[in-house]
Amino acid sequence: MLNTDLFQRFERKAQVITLKDCGAIAAYTGLSAGDKVVDAGTGSGFLAVFLANIVGPQGRVCTYEIDGHSAKISQQNFERAGLRNIELRQKNILEGIDEQNVHLVTLDLPDSEKALPHALKALVAGGYCVGYLPNTEQLSKFVSEGERVGFRHERSLELIAREWLVRKQGTRPDNTGLLHTAFLAFLRKPFGKL
Amino acid sequence: MLNTDLFQRFERKAQVITLKDCGAIAAYTGLSAGDKVVDAGTGSGFLAVFLANIVGPQGRVCTYEIDGHSAKISQQNFERAGLRNIELRQKNILEGIDEQNVHLVTLDLPDSEKALPHALKALVAGGYCVGYLPNTEQLSKFVSEGERVGFRHERSLELIAREWLVRKQGTRPDNTGLLHTAFLAFLRKPFGKL
Amino acid sequence: MLNTDLFQRFERKAQVITLKDCGAIAAYTGLSAGDKVVDAGTGSGFLAVFLANIVGPQGRVCTYEIDGHSAKISQQNFERAGLRNIELRQKNILEGIDEQNVHLVTLDLPDSEKALPHALKALVAGGYCVGYLPNTEQLSKFVSEGERVGFRHERSLELIAREWLVRKQGTRPDNTGLLHTAFLAFLRKPFGKL
Amino acid sequence: MLNTDLFQRFERKAQVITLKDCGAIAAYTGLSAGDKVVDAGTGSGFLAVFLANIVGPQGRVCTYEIDGHSAKISQQNFERAGLRNIELRQKNILEGIDEQNVHLVTLDLPDSEKALPHALKALVAGGYCVGYLPNTEQLSKFVSEGERVGFRHERSLELIAREWLVRKQGTRPDNTGLLHTAFLAFLRKPFGKL
Repeated sequence: MLNTDLFQRFERKAQVITLKDCGAIAAYTGLSAGDKVVDAGTGSGFLAVFLANIVGPQGRVCTYEIDGHSAKISQQNFERAGLRNIELRQKNILEGIDEQNVHLVTLDLPDSEKALPHALKALVAGGYCVGYLPNTEQLSKFVSEGERVGFRHERSLELIAREWLVRKQGTRPDNTGLLHTAFLAFLRKPFGKL
Repeated sequence: MLNTDLFQRFERKAQVITLKDCGAIAAYTGLSAGDKVVDAGTGSGFLAVFLANIVGPQGRVCTYEIDGHSAKISQQNFERAGLRNIELRQKNILEGIDEQNVHLVTLDLPDSEKALPHALKALVAGGYCVGYLPNTEQLSKFVSEGERVGFRHERSLELIAREWLVRKQGTRPDNTGLLHTAFLAFLRKPFGKL
Repeated sequence: MLNTDLFQRFERKAQVITLKDCGAIAAYTGLSAGDKVVDAGTGSGFLAVFLANIVGPQGRVCTYEIDGHSAKISQQNFERAGLRNIELRQKNILEGIDEQNVHLVTLDLPDSEKALPHALKALVAGGYCVGYLPNTEQLSKFVSEGERVGFRHERSLELIAREWLVRKQGTRPDNTGLLHTAFLAFLRKPFGKL
Repeated sequence: MLNTDLFQRFERKAQVITLKDCGAIAAYTGLSAGDKVVDAGTGSGFLAVFLANIVGPQGRVCTYEIDGHSAKISQQNFERAGLRNIELRQKNILEGIDEQNVHLVTLDLPDSEKALPHALKALVAGGYCVGYLPNTEQLSKFVSEGERVGFRHERSLELIAREWLVRKQGTRPDNTGLLHTAFLAFLRKPFGKL
């Protein structure tokens, strides 16, 4: 079991992908112990740690980060998490993905749709490419570009998580909190011939 | 990677725990490959399959179901999923939990709070007991009973997942869908002495 | 047209009832120009101003406030709003409602359910009593007590309003904001004999 | 007080603007008894009835509908509602608005942004033009075109209303319902020189 306190202690550079979204990425793709994942960009490494924890020692996460400072911070976070199945590549994913037979590619870049041809090539048939997309324009571009290059658009989602206060004085949702993080688009590589 | 089509093909007896909630249970507890899980009641077995897929062959899910018909259907679902790390116990969890050093206990019963003392005993320090609770009265009872027996209430959540339509005609959320499934209460066994 | 800037300038003592909830109260009760309203407690007077603005010079809002300081502040707010159809009663509504043939009673008290018998008597047949209830326990008590004294429970609602950012950089919901204010319970006085 | 049962009995041609959105339009614009409103397209006339009910006999709603069948049905609905302050114009609002010194213009057309120059001319300073926009592309186009012609973008919103079940068996949100109707964009005519 991962020490969830770790999630709070994470040194953050970019805004972190929240647990509600991490959970949905794992759940809607059926991510399993032993799976092979490619992730870009790394940012603080939060999503990479989350996914590495699920795929476990038989699985593997390769995470691409172009920015040197982020790479350094995330590397420290990986060590702190004690996870040995994460590999950090300081490299631009838009120039290609080295891995093959990947089960899941997660993309959180300003122009994630540009990595879609590489993702398609890297994935096994039935594998997923998930975009983490803050704006609706990005969502729309990601999905249409995905369909153009040969993915099937399985679903796009947004998750709203409300924290509830459960106390003697009464039970109610917390008054304020996160109303939006990003849209999640789930593209799938078809099983048949492209 | 789990074949996610399986999720749709599941033979359902009781209402199934949705993927948004399954994902949150895994994410907020830091569930890992290799973990040991206890689940009750089994229902159609959907949550058990989901958890077994994440903990993988090094992990294990024991799921308790008192109803014979549900037990039979869920057993078929486990076989269909090809997962060998699920064990079905046709037994009332309110009479005790056989397992020890468990990382996660998930409870989806009409009176889940009654299983909390057993859950506390079965869990490792730092382990989680998650209640899946349709009504606010159940949420409140589960949390206060949990605190009474020695758990720490880490958080309670509800998740709203909106499906988005991304099409040439325009981008928008689907008009209708699920507005509520259940509240999730996350209780944690303290690390120190009880 | 009311100067909506006024809403922002309001001197606040208690937490103000938000516009999303004000709008829903007006909409789901069919509040009309010319209607007679009773409101308690006044608080900062925000809801009273909102309702008085809709019922107009042919209508009337009587607002009950027991606390002297709140009464003084809300009186100033009414004058600032330039509305002459609001009457402030520094009086405990639990001791009775002076008005008759009222179309709408709005209750925002710690124990709003105690005012329900008075509300029922003051209302015209078909009139509404709306409870503004932060906790689920209050919601449940308000509805069951309402049904006990002779109201019909028409609906209970909660509204989530998300602000959207519409900019050149992209279109998306604001990241943070209000996730909860209160539940609204709509009780209706039956048309027939009680 | 409007007979709210009327809302349910409405003969519908197009999809009706829901009460949650009607309420928000009235609330965030500060709509008052006595105000002058222009509305297009009429559709079933639901929003026109709602607004006419609020502005009352001292106010006025002019509603534009190009389609003859919709015009006929909505005319019947206006008569059934017994409201004499609604005027139906079977005319294309894109060809101009006859009214002047209007406090509120509501637009629910496939290309609402095209009516914005007419709306700006018809409104009093400080008056609102509200777009009811199902897709995010429409929202974005409406706001940017509004700003281009001289409006100030005050806010854009979406409202999610959850119905709650309050029963002896327990208190919880209804499982299914509306997750999306439309985005509401509030544009305001500046007080100073354009």
